[in-house]
Amino acid sequence: MATPHEPKQDRSRATRQRLLEATIDCLAEKGWAAATVSVVAERAGVSRGAAQHHFPTREDLITAALTYMFDTRTDQAVTAAVSESGPVRTEAVVAGLVESYTSPLFKAALQVWTHAAADPALRERIVPLEARFGRGAHRRAVEALGVDDSDPVTHHLVQATLDLARGLGLADVLTDDSARRKQIVHQWAATLHEALEARR
Amino acid sequence: MATPHEPKQDRSRATRQRLLEATIDCLAEKGWAAATVSVVAERAGVSRGAAQHHFPTREDLITAALTYMFDTRTDQAVTAAVSESGPVRTEAVVAGLVESYTSPLFKAALQVWTHAAADPALRERIVPLEARFGRGAHRRAVEALGVDDSDPVTHHLVQATLDLARGLGLADVLTDDSARRKQIVHQWAATLHEALEARR
Repeated sequence: MATPHEPKQDRSRATRQRLLEATIDCLAEKGWAAATVSVVAERAGVSRGAAQHHFPTREDLITAALTYMFDTRTDQAVTAAVSESGPVRTEAVVAGLVESYTSPLFKAALQVWTHAAADPALRERIVPLEARFGRGAHRRAVEALGVDDSDPVTHHLVQATLDLARGLGLADVLTDDSARRKQIVHQWAATLHEALEARR
Repeated sequence: MATPHEPKQDRSRATRQRLLEATIDCLAEKGWAAATVSVVAERAGVSRGAAQHHFPTREDLITAALTYMFDTRTDQAVTAAVSESGPVRTEAVVAGLVESYTSPLFKAALQVWTHAAADPALRERIVPLEARFGRGAHRRAVEALGVDDSDPVTHHLVQATLDLARGLGLADVLTDDSARRKQIVHQWAATLHEALEARR
């Protein structure tokens, strides 16, 4: 419903969104040390004061950026696969999951996770996010594969697929690993499909 | 053969080794920013001057530490498995590989890889190491599993197992993931064993 406040709220929402996207890009491209509120604000074309109004601390900004990107971007990765069926669908889901772990979001998250390993205060904020992202990714994978997650073998095969995807993401950080990755995805999708079919 | 020079050479070798081990511990526990030559030298009980005699730059120290630890430590992970056979051997190999990716060496390497993502000079030194470590880990996995790596399906399944291990290592950085990991290793090993048997 239109109210006189809407344009201002819209601007505020747009500013917030630009800051969150700039945070992910800064982390992914420049690394943890360079991704300060000032640098992110400049990249987003927002004043430092306005950035701090939205996000008082760097940790607030970074955790909000990871959450926003996880919630808005990761659905795309596997949605397209659902129109397929059989082994083609399984491979499309595996490929979509794996690609989401080579995205700027994963590269940004890697910077944050790695820094948090030696920073107990940051770790405390990231651990609940990790649990939430893990559950979300698992639920989306189960839905996209169309499998019964109450079967423990199926559950562990889906988990293993996400662990594999994470490992393939890490192998893509310093070099373009896409050619090798394509072959691994193809082989694992075939093995996974057969193993999941045996549980239906 | 005993020579008058040996004790001095031995001392030098021992100093070098202490520095390399302290580097891995510093990186794994304190993170990239804290792992300077001074901090490592102090931890190793070596003067800064002596440390710089062995390793003129921080990058020299870090790349030497990763190489030394990779060459001396990773054999242990899978050697024990070779006395077994059948699915027990496959699970022991997978478990050994996966455990090597939850070690301080992996946690130290993660700090270096993640920093190198945003530091082109460091990246240039790490990329050849990554390729070398990748080939070494693959060769050891093939030997421990006792499979024919010239078969492309076998080759890709072994690669996928190493990618899975890397992903499980990353899942262990902020929290103790060992209980979940054990179930994933058990399921992956069973699925892998069946898939490898079909290629023999």
